[in-house]
Amino acid sequence: MKYYSYDDFKIDTLSLIQRVKDSQFEAIVAVARGGLTLSHAMAEGLDIRQVQSIRTELYDKSVKRDKLEVFDACRLDGLKKVLVVDDIADSGDTLKAVMEYLGKKYEDIEFVSCTIFYKKTSVYEPHYWINEADGWIDFFWERDFLR
Amino acid sequence: MKYYSYDDFKIDTLSLIQRVKDSQFEAIVAVARGGLTLSHAMAEGLDIRQVQSIRTELYDKSVKRDKLEVFDACRLDGLKKVLVVDDIADSGDTLKAVMEYLGKKYEDIEFVSCTIFYKKTSVYEPHYWINEADGWIDFFWERDFLR
Repeated sequence: MKYYSYDDFKIDTLSLIQRVKDSQFEAIVAVARGGLTLSHAMAEGLDIRQVQSIRTELYDKSVKRDKLEVFDACRLDGLKKVLVVDDIADSGDTLKAVMEYLGKKYEDIEFVSCTIFYKKTSVYEPHYWINEADGWIDFFWERDFLR
Repeated sequence: MKYYSYDDFKIDTLSLIQRVKDSQFEAIVAVARGGLTLSHAMAEGLDIRQVQSIRTELYDKSVKRDKLEVFDACRLDGLKKVLVVDDIADSGDTLKAVMEYLGKKYEDIEFVSCTIFYKKTSVYEPHYWINEADGWIDFFWERDFLR
């Protein structure tokens, strides 16, 4: 298990901002909780004021394939281009569910996804990602605030 | 202007978690953008999965007293106790507007506010705050990701 520090995060987030900066995103959808700190940093770096959040939960652990329910409190009507931000595409289930959900709900909006980490075994590949992950990552936001 | 680093933030956030941990909050409302990184850290430390966001904007700069409009993407129905998180109560206008708005919209929910910084000149004092601020604070999330 590799500790992912704030210093690592700073370098990678600046790279990610550099990658997506020429697209004119009007808003960021943060996939909670993992994508919240990254969304904040990207919003500052890209000068985007609108940051909203979305999250998923397993709704039936009894079925073979885990099913995800999307909890959506986003209000995106009238927008054209929205950046969806999460920390990692691991299994990829979360980001896949979120992107499908948003695409269906807002047919006129172009959604572009980005993460810091991507696993090759993920069922979904983000449009932009920075590092390939091969093991479990111990993110500073998960480690540093445990009581 | 004082640079507020991630290391400072880690110490203060752990104090803030300690202060509010005995209340059983079911959700966090993050005041975007300033409260997003803190909300993520608090959500991890308090083991709260629901993090939603809210933001304000000036809607008429011509009037003497600046007026704030609240942009609300929260769905809080059915909850009882919600923590509202922002980085600083500076003028206090934002947090005052958000707390009044939420209190009116959800009469059955108890909203408790917290920030890391509080200025004595603020028109609103959060229920919990850690440091008194006397000048401009250069938060790491505003500084470290500028291109």
